[in-house]
Amino acid sequence: MNSLHDLIDAIPLPDAAAERQARARLDRLTKPPGSLGVLEDLAARLAAITGQVCPPLDHPAVLVAAADHGVVAEGVSPYPQAVTGQMVRNFLRGGAAINALAGAAGAQVIVVDAGVAADLPALPELRRAAVMRGSGNLRREPAMSRAVAEQMLLAGARIVAEEADAGLDLLALGEMGIGNSTAAACLTSALTGAAPELTTGRGAGVDDAGLARKRAVVADALARACVSHADPLGALAELGGLEIALLAGAALAAASRRIPVVLDGYIATSAALAAAALAPRLPAYLIAGHRSAEPGHRLALEHLGLRPLLALDMRLGEGSGAALAIPIVRAASRVMREMATFEDAGVSARLM
Amino acid sequence: MNSLHDLIDAIPLPDAAAERQARARLDRLTKPPGSLGVLEDLAARLAAITGQVCPPLDHPAVLVAAADHGVVAEGVSPYPQAVTGQMVRNFLRGGAAINALAGAAGAQVIVVDAGVAADLPALPELRRAAVMRGSGNLRREPAMSRAVAEQMLLAGARIVAEEADAGLDLLALGEMGIGNSTAAACLTSALTGAAPELTTGRGAGVDDAGLARKRAVVADALARACVSHADPLGALAELGGLEIALLAGAALAAASRRIPVVLDGYIATSAALAAAALAPRLPAYLIAGHRSAEPGHRLALEHLGLRPLLALDMRLGEGSGAALAIPIVRAASRVMREMATFEDAGVSARLM
Repeated sequence: MNSLHDLIDAIPLPDAAAERQARARLDRLTKPPGSLGVLEDLAARLAAITGQVCPPLDHPAVLVAAADHGVVAEGVSPYPQAVTGQMVRNFLRGGAAINALAGAAGAQVIVVDAGVAADLPALPELRRAAVMRGSGNLRREPAMSRAVAEQMLLAGARIVAEEADAGLDLLALGEMGIGNSTAAACLTSALTGAAPELTTGRGAGVDDAGLARKRAVVADALARACVSHADPLGALAELGGLEIALLAGAALAAASRRIPVVLDGYIATSAALAAAALAPRLPAYLIAGHRSAEPGHRLALEHLGLRPLLALDMRLGEGSGAALAIPIVRAASRVMREMATFEDAGVSARLM
Repeated sequence: MNSLHDLIDAIPLPDAAAERQARARLDRLTKPPGSLGVLEDLAARLAAITGQVCPPLDHPAVLVAAADHGVVAEGVSPYPQAVTGQMVRNFLRGGAAINALAGAAGAQVIVVDAGVAADLPALPELRRAAVMRGSGNLRREPAMSRAVAEQMLLAGARIVAEEADAGLDLLALGEMGIGNSTAAACLTSALTGAAPELTTGRGAGVDDAGLARKRAVVADALARACVSHADPLGALAELGGLEIALLAGAALAAASRRIPVVLDGYIATSAALAAAALAPRLPAYLIAGHRSAEPGHRLALEHLGLRPLLALDMRLGEGSGAALAIPIVRAASRVMREMATFEDAGVSARLM
């Protein structure tokens, strides 16, 4: 992909014929029609996304993009900025929640430096995509230029294209960045029109005073930037984050390859909101893994027309909620592949 | 276990010390305290259940008990009784939803004939526990005698004891039995006091006329049997099913071995209601896997004080909802085993 335009243009329509075939097959499997509920809708959507009635989904990965945020200077997080880099080291050593949860789901973890302020170890497991060491303070200045936002989108797309060439067939999006729930709130307000009180939550756990500060920051940033749904690249540049822009590009690239994208919590979903504003065909490729405890997340998912698979009051990020949902997504594909039909199994049909 | 009394008596109190240690460890792991939400509560409960802060849970199994129900003569199911035996054959050949979903979860499927009317193949994979080929028509007569109910409870306990000796460390309960959602409705009404309109749903998918018939059958059965929470063995005998009694015994035996029990939908939960009425210490060992689309299931779970991990509008049974929840339960234990602490990882604590 050489340009954002090419990337957006490369997203195909969902495969309606594969979806119809999947629904027809679901009704012939040995169970009362519809009795697997959401799992059946998921199986049909996976067919529409992949173009395959029985997609294997044997090579899932969680892409964890990390970056720092200038807005931490405003006191919006209870954790110091250094935690972003410390947690990246933790991801690389396998000690974070996402390592345990991705491992449990049989998924690889792809760690990307999208703009971490701290020095990071030169390890082959760490993908480098940073062009800045942290974004600007979005209360007072653009988080990044439009050119950098586009660079990050394309960097995310490039990573997914390489992984897809290597076999990736199910992508979960995760992130790490102290201060990034403030950026997610700004983006969600800018892209859905919802007021800051509805989109700003406690993130990693600010107290009441911190929450009030955070809301004021979001309101100030929105007033300063004055961007809307009509200019998603502008919204990403003014109000986003480096890792958020990278994840938006990753989602677009996955859709262009017919790879299902499992969203995590509020921050990953704000990236999807921006990506969907750029590419209206995107939401058909998105699966909401988990509805987080952040109040704005529900709004963002509704805006995308997505119903989350899980709602376990998690609010960690890193891709943790998406990773927990991967086994459900894979189970839906396994039902399609492995279940017998009524004819094959010699099971009687309904009487009435 | 030689008697039901011994079985009930063998259930220990949950291990409060292990639970405290687990909660203390959760707060030292590299994540904001509480940010894994329900997964943290689950990890703490697993410690209380197993007595281990980091229980392995590497040998999960789904116990699928099958039996027929005389009440099908009343037209309560849209499927013919023959489907019970046909589905048991399907389980044994690996073609049913539970095979696909247990496989996806890395869990073994244990298929038990608890009283199927049809002839079944003599295969080593089929556990035999039947003493009757189907229960009586609970609208007009007891489903079984008290002696048979006790036999089935002890049979379920024996199977779990054998599996526990072979390494089983996480048990999910599933069932198959055309007509058994009528028995579950009767048991739920008898054991919670809720009216038949609240406990009777569409099961495998009866139409409006079928639902009205089913409600009348449940009301008649309750009036005929006149049993209450005070006599759970009587309730199982009068209004239950052979597979339901077996699952109740399985739950008791698992608790006596400190093995967590993942409940499936309405029928498995009705077995747990009966078991909990027999053994008030039981609910601490129960995990609700999935809240089914059956309206009475919510009531039954609330009565047991359980919050389901999943709510995906499934209404199949077989253990399907429990199997989908197994990866979440295992993920909670993996978080405890694999995550680094703040000290180990050199990650800064919160500022405020």
